[in-house]
Amino acid sequence: MFYISIVRHNKDEPIYKQIYRWFQQEILSGRLSADTPLPSKRSLAQTLSVSQNSVLAAYMQLNTEGYIYTIERKGYFVERLEPLSLGASPLLALPESTPQPSYEYIYSFSHMSVDASRFPFKQWYKSEQAATEANRRSWADIDPPAGSQRLRTAISYSVRQMRGVTCQPEQIIIGASTQVLLQQLTQLLGPDRSYALENPGYQRIRQMLEQNGERTELLSVDNQGLQTEALQQQKTINTVIVTPSHQMPVGAIMPISRRIQLLNWCYEQTGRYVIEDDYDSEFRYEGDMIPALQSLDHHGRVIYMGTYSKSLLPGLRISYMVLPPDLLDLFHQKCAHLMQTASSLHQQTLAHFIENGEYRKHIRRMSRHYGEVREHLIYEIQDIFGKKAVIQGEKSGLHFLLHVQTHETLPSILHRAALNGLELYGLDRFMKYPKQAPPTLVIGFALLEKEYVSKAVEVLYHSCFP
Amino acid sequence: MFYISIVRHNKDEPIYKQIYRWFQQEILSGRLSADTPLPSKRSLAQTLSVSQNSVLAAYMQLNTEGYIYTIERKGYFVERLEPLSLGASPLLALPESTPQPSYEYIYSFSHMSVDASRFPFKQWYKSEQAATEANRRSWADIDPPAGSQRLRTAISYSVRQMRGVTCQPEQIIIGASTQVLLQQLTQLLGPDRSYALENPGYQRIRQMLEQNGERTELLSVDNQGLQTEALQQQKTINTVIVTPSHQMPVGAIMPISRRIQLLNWCYEQTGRYVIEDDYDSEFRYEGDMIPALQSLDHHGRVIYMGTYSKSLLPGLRISYMVLPPDLLDLFHQKCAHLMQTASSLHQQTLAHFIENGEYRKHIRRMSRHYGEVREHLIYEIQDIFGKKAVIQGEKSGLHFLLHVQTHETLPSILHRAALNGLELYGLDRFMKYPKQAPPTLVIGFALLEKEYVSKAVEVLYHSCFP
Repeated sequence: MFYISIVRHNKDEPIYKQIYRWFQQEILSGRLSADTPLPSKRSLAQTLSVSQNSVLAAYMQLNTEGYIYTIERKGYFVERLEPLSLGASPLLALPESTPQPSYEYIYSFSHMSVDASRFPFKQWYKSEQAATEANRRSWADIDPPAGSQRLRTAISYSVRQMRGVTCQPEQIIIGASTQVLLQQLTQLLGPDRSYALENPGYQRIRQMLEQNGERTELLSVDNQGLQTEALQQQKTINTVIVTPSHQMPVGAIMPISRRIQLLNWCYEQTGRYVIEDDYDSEFRYEGDMIPALQSLDHHGRVIYMGTYSKSLLPGLRISYMVLPPDLLDLFHQKCAHLMQTASSLHQQTLAHFIENGEYRKHIRRMSRHYGEVREHLIYEIQDIFGKKAVIQGEKSGLHFLLHVQTHETLPSILHRAALNGLELYGLDRFMKYPKQAPPTLVIGFALLEKEYVSKAVEVLYHSCFP
Repeated sequence: MFYISIVRHNKDEPIYKQIYRWFQQEILSGRLSADTPLPSKRSLAQTLSVSQNSVLAAYMQLNTEGYIYTIERKGYFVERLEPLSLGASPLLALPESTPQPSYEYIYSFSHMSVDASRFPFKQWYKSEQAATEANRRSWADIDPPAGSQRLRTAISYSVRQMRGVTCQPEQIIIGASTQVLLQQLTQLLGPDRSYALENPGYQRIRQMLEQNGERTELLSVDNQGLQTEALQQQKTINTVIVTPSHQMPVGAIMPISRRIQLLNWCYEQTGRYVIEDDYDSEFRYEGDMIPALQSLDHHGRVIYMGTYSKSLLPGLRISYMVLPPDLLDLFHQKCAHLMQTASSLHQQTLAHFIENGEYRKHIRRMSRHYGEVREHLIYEIQDIFGKKAVIQGEKSGLHFLLHVQTHETLPSILHRAALNGLELYGLDRFMKYPKQAPPTLVIGFALLEKEYVSKAVEVLYHSCFP
């Protein structure tokens, strides 16, 4: 007979489970060999002084999982199993993660953040309530690959008003991030692609493309954005990814002459496309908004990409692209199997938030706030740095460049800043091959409070000129 | 002098904008040629009877966008621009979408849905409030590629308790969907992969892998799930994607003998992996939960994939995978550039929802509810179909198969069901090459209300036997 040690009144493991687990381990370890008969329910229950129901429940579970088999009127027998290699411990050793130096930041010039403390959570949750009540039934399913129809309609109006982008709701494809959408887009554009990227530029896009095996070429950027003339030399390029409204990270606004050059390059050969990454141009401080490149394109060669990461919250994970009609057809053929990546709840909430005017209100409010911080910041930098620093690309968005005339190296500046509680990044992280040059800093101001501007600039100055 | 028609008191377009737009169009069309001088602010303002400020604002914007240039003390001049090809209409014709027949469904046997009407929105929003207040500052940034640390910790406890999966929080990677995570995983596993897929099985996974250029092999499924013996023949396979707890769509529970075979196959050669897709096994109706395959693997060769699409709501878009330690290292090397796809708000909310016990409560409540519907449904089917139908794979999850002995074809059955308001799907959509055979239906019951069960089964019967 078997000896099974039963712990009574064990809250974590009822008696049937203890019996089950004992047999499971005996069978897996091979101590109970194939075709061994199990004791009858009655006799085991008696031996262990437990109820027959406990034994029955254990046997049923062992049978369901295939540890034992049953022959009618004869009882249960141990299943014939290959031996399984069991390790010493089910908890494997984790690799030692490279320790990240962690600093306590007091001020931040991060270009990756937004000011979430001013996000109208109350209005957002009101829209969420309205969306929940309006759509209770629809939460049972997932949104289609292109996204919620209601949100696509809301975006098509909003992006026309705010960015001059002309499109129908059907052209809008929603996804969790620009990266996810770009991944889908590379599928649509097919394998014979060579992507031109801005240098300096957004490295996560380049890394993703390269990891997917796509060919990439780097094109230089100056104070007018991407140098479009270079496209005439690089004959293999047929797709350009560009940030014309506020170059990332240089901040340049691409003038109309280059925009026309870019579009004409596109029209010269079939199959050429421009992907316009319009990541933060909702915020503009001098003059009117700069219309999107897409608004000039009447031939369906510009793919516009927008996001709510900067204008609302990055954590919502809602971006979109506007596909030209010919790619739209291909999308429905090639991407029908892809699951929508953006939250349905957030999509419906955002649709309400745009429809009831809260989105525009938020943009107006934040433009004013960011504008004030920016003005104060530029004033302080000019006051303290004088001729030792030059600001570039400050006309819109949430960051600008600061070229500093110092003999200090970029790493030493960043290190000193971090030690003094200042989060700070350099231009080098936007380059595939960072070059040695007078240090250029990327100054984001979304996380900076007005009252800390002077102090932060002071720390910045002493990091550059110790 | 220029003739510009100004509409005063135009709410949609202020005067400066009308002046700007007039010049923009004249310059783009080439009617104003390069280097043409613009009238002085004063003279144009006088001619048009508008304020000088309106003209100044228009000129500034034209200058910022590069339509005109300025020479000090001489004024503004038209920029030299290439001609741009302008189409007739900025709104391109959309391709005609293939018209989808749309039916008004009264009852649904969809296997893709959950019962959202019973989702505890109130408790969810309470967790959301708590999460918002606890993390206000953190909404400024995006979560790291692996996901929120707090949620990863909550999941590591929950998945051990509910599925027997042993892991540390560091091993958990969060993403918007199983598809997104699998895409990342293929990057980690590298290019020399040959993926074995269940047939019948989940086609969106196969389509995604094939579109990414991965090699796939189909392995048959019987009433014990994937036929693991076939792995011995197909020598090139080194990665198996499998649904052992409730095979999708057959519903089979893979017995321990095959689980051991599968693991031993994995241990035979380095570089072999099993990807366990555990999509709906939170719901179980007879006996205890079937422990995950991962719980048997002490060598780090099983990659476990879980989701909240079935257990909570598909629209939340939160799934996760549990990486073995060696792949974890690779993840930090190769996926650092990938942006997190799941919403931060939902991640924090879910962490609270799990921590305060609401998640377990919801699973218990829904298991009871689904269990009742399922029992009633099976009873009705057996009652009405008698020997004309056989049920398979009903022990857990939210669907089972129904093999019907009829001379009617599957398309005619589905068509008749749709006409009678019944949403219904066949086994064929889970096959790459659907075969002609007596029709097999996939009966999902998450959307079915108890009081409609008899009526739905009646419509089902008459669709099969008109």
